[in-house]
Amino acid sequence: MKRADIVVIGGSAAGIPAAITARRHYPEKTIILIRKEKQVLIPCGIPYIFGTLGKPENNLMSDKALQDNNIELVIDEAVELHAKELDPKGKKVVLASGESVLYEKLILATGSSPAILPIPGFDKKNVYTVKKDVQYLQTLLDALKNVKELVILGCGFIGVEFADECKKNRDINVTVVEMLDQCLQIAFGEGACKCCQEIEDYLTKKGITIVTGTRITEILGDEAIKAVRLSNGKEIKADALIVGVGVSPNVELARKAGLATSKDGIIVDTTMRTSDPNIFACGDCATKFSFFTGQTSTLRLASIATMEARIAGANLYEISRKNPGVLGVFSTAVGNLTVAVAGVCEKGAKQCGFEVVTGEVEVPDRHPAGMPGASKIWVKMIFNKLNGELIGGAVRGGPSAGELINTISACIQNRMRASDIAIFQIGTHPAVTASPVVYPLVTVAEIALKNMKR
Amino acid sequence: MKRADIVVIGGSAAGIPAAITARRHYPEKTIILIRKEKQVLIPCGIPYIFGTLGKPENNLMSDKALQDNNIELVIDEAVELHAKELDPKGKKVVLASGESVLYEKLILATGSSPAILPIPGFDKKNVYTVKKDVQYLQTLLDALKNVKELVILGCGFIGVEFADECKKNRDINVTVVEMLDQCLQIAFGEGACKCCQEIEDYLTKKGITIVTGTRITEILGDEAIKAVRLSNGKEIKADALIVGVGVSPNVELARKAGLATSKDGIIVDTTMRTSDPNIFACGDCATKFSFFTGQTSTLRLASIATMEARIAGANLYEISRKNPGVLGVFSTAVGNLTVAVAGVCEKGAKQCGFEVVTGEVEVPDRHPAGMPGASKIWVKMIFNKLNGELIGGAVRGGPSAGELINTISACIQNRMRASDIAIFQIGTHPAVTASPVVYPLVTVAEIALKNMKR
Repeated sequence: MKRADIVVIGGSAAGIPAAITARRHYPEKTIILIRKEKQVLIPCGIPYIFGTLGKPENNLMSDKALQDNNIELVIDEAVELHAKELDPKGKKVVLASGESVLYEKLILATGSSPAILPIPGFDKKNVYTVKKDVQYLQTLLDALKNVKELVILGCGFIGVEFADECKKNRDINVTVVEMLDQCLQIAFGEGACKCCQEIEDYLTKKGITIVTGTRITEILGDEAIKAVRLSNGKEIKADALIVGVGVSPNVELARKAGLATSKDGIIVDTTMRTSDPNIFACGDCATKFSFFTGQTSTLRLASIATMEARIAGANLYEISRKNPGVLGVFSTAVGNLTVAVAGVCEKGAKQCGFEVVTGEVEVPDRHPAGMPGASKIWVKMIFNKLNGELIGGAVRGGPSAGELINTISACIQNRMRASDIAIFQIGTHPAVTASPVVYPLVTVAEIALKNMKR
Repeated sequence: MKRADIVVIGGSAAGIPAAITARRHYPEKTIILIRKEKQVLIPCGIPYIFGTLGKPENNLMSDKALQDNNIELVIDEAVELHAKELDPKGKKVVLASGESVLYEKLILATGSSPAILPIPGFDKKNVYTVKKDVQYLQTLLDALKNVKELVILGCGFIGVEFADECKKNRDINVTVVEMLDQCLQIAFGEGACKCCQEIEDYLTKKGITIVTGTRITEILGDEAIKAVRLSNGKEIKADALIVGVGVSPNVELARKAGLATSKDGIIVDTTMRTSDPNIFACGDCATKFSFFTGQTSTLRLASIATMEARIAGANLYEISRKNPGVLGVFSTAVGNLTVAVAGVCEKGAKQCGFEVVTGEVEVPDRHPAGMPGASKIWVKMIFNKLNGELIGGAVRGGPSAGELINTISACIQNRMRASDIAIFQIGTHPAVTASPVVYPLVTVAEIALKNMKR
């Protein structure tokens, strides 16, 4: 029987920062982190295993941060949880090895798993989901050696990245099947379709086929997949299928312990507490709500997991942090093109009940435009018409777009209005940013202000 | 005799956005912009004329924005100003050509000029200041062809950039003379000396000599410069000297018209109005105050000019914007190294009267660190110990540091506390940013929070 003041179950993008935050805020407490994986994959790096990085071992999180923070690592699977409020045996975690760990405060960071989609034939050989598991991904990597026809289901971020990476250095045909009209459309919405269009153009140029506006209705073959049938009636040959859509929060452990759960996750309040006040949950396994409306959100991102982990870890013994709700800040890159989005898109804003005013601009990302490495950066921002508050933004450009979206995120989180952003103080430099005269955030805010007056 | 509702004097980083902002806010008004230069240089791009860009003509602002916004351009010099409140002849601008322009509202964006330093021999041939003048800079560019020994006075941003650029593709010895202990120290302070040290290391590796902790006390030679004498007694041979320190606001026109001025500029209030309510001033010619203390600031940056221009242009007929005070956001890049700073450094904070807590971290700017193009990004942030508010930050890394500093600037402008930044919602991606688990802003905020508890 082991025991620790603080026990964390899960060792990925939620578990690690939760444990480290707990250490920072409670230096005197003992902390154990339990995870079932010997090695932990960097979630967002998984697509890059199949091209740029070459193997799962090149995409691992180091355990050094745990050692540095005096966090004991137990590699074992938590199979049973006893919660004090509900169970006379609590407060205890039972492990697959038979060992038990007593806790005072517990953080559940059990993550999510790829959903089993209700498509006939989904259980056939060579149908792969994106499991965060070194061995599983190695099997997929090996399988790709014998694949000539690869189909990818879903052209969201995962689908785009898998398609691009799997095509690299491989003589295979790659087809991406997307039920919406364009790739990345859930994140970017229809109003930012330039981003989506350029990503599609890039993939197409690389020889990847994108089939939109259709679903996979059946996976054909005997033991192994041979083709997929689409809702438009067509069939596409397939030696392998990678499913890049659908995840389910891992709630079983919590549910069996009697904690409140739903299909959206382990139910937490804004302090990240579950229905048991000594048990917190964060990351993909926990329920989420929108920053804008407070309504349940299905967004699941590593960056959201880390934010929630920093709330849970800090709040264990003393509530000091409150979850503001998820905003959703995404970025992806193919070739020299980076696209990124924060907050709601135009369509999403309308679904939230906001009437919106937008502005957009495309300017050189260096000044003068003849500076080496210059490309164009395009920015669109979406404001609440009623009060002028920024509620969304999208960026398309070079690598610096990945940080520019975070400036937009800062503006959204601070509920800055177009009139505030119009006099935003920026740092600019010929070799690394747009000119201050046309700096995109400020220019777009001015354009939106003009549009508001119409 | 010409007339316009709105007249802007000056056509650089303040004048152009002032006129464009006026157009956006007052679509029905007539606007004339008067400037003396046929062609306008991009201020921050000037050092790059001497290396990367090759000639002044490659560093020009386009007049297209003026045409697109229906702003009449008059190329002439304003030599006399009549202000209604003070002068029965007002409201009128008299030009060098003899033409006059009547105005209803006037914006002064007359900029600054390099200071004439009280160093004996300052008037010798081949002593150059950094004038924003195409012909003058062409003369300097031509002169460099015959230079073997170049001395640059001042190792701030201008000095660093001139040294790096002048050394490119030229077989010359370059020596930079700086009175402080390190380059860039005014902006970065002593606490961020890693940034300064790496810039110095870069320049030294390129064969540039940096002499710190000393001043130029005399410029030696007959008609033309032959050497400079330093306060440490040494002499350095010099065929040319470029002076990269000292500017004076251009206040003459305003002063002669009877407007209130000081050595710090044309005196303006927080609405950018001068002592005459129909005359506004913005950019290098106007007085400035600190965002943090309200005290007079001597910061003069193109990005500050554009911010003030957007306030002045919007406020002409109806006050809607207020100057929050200057923050100071700088960045520069040499080779693959970008350094940037926002707000106050540790020393500056103490001078402002703040007790501070800091945090710093260095992490890979991609994740995993094996992603192509990865380098390290270092971030330091400075918080007011009393209330936890962010008041400064410094960044050293690759090109994305140029945008990351703007996220820090957004956090400062919104007076975000360390506890807010610790749960900041970020977008991350393997190919363009640090990992969400160690994202530098968030990590530094957590470290600072821990340090506050000590």
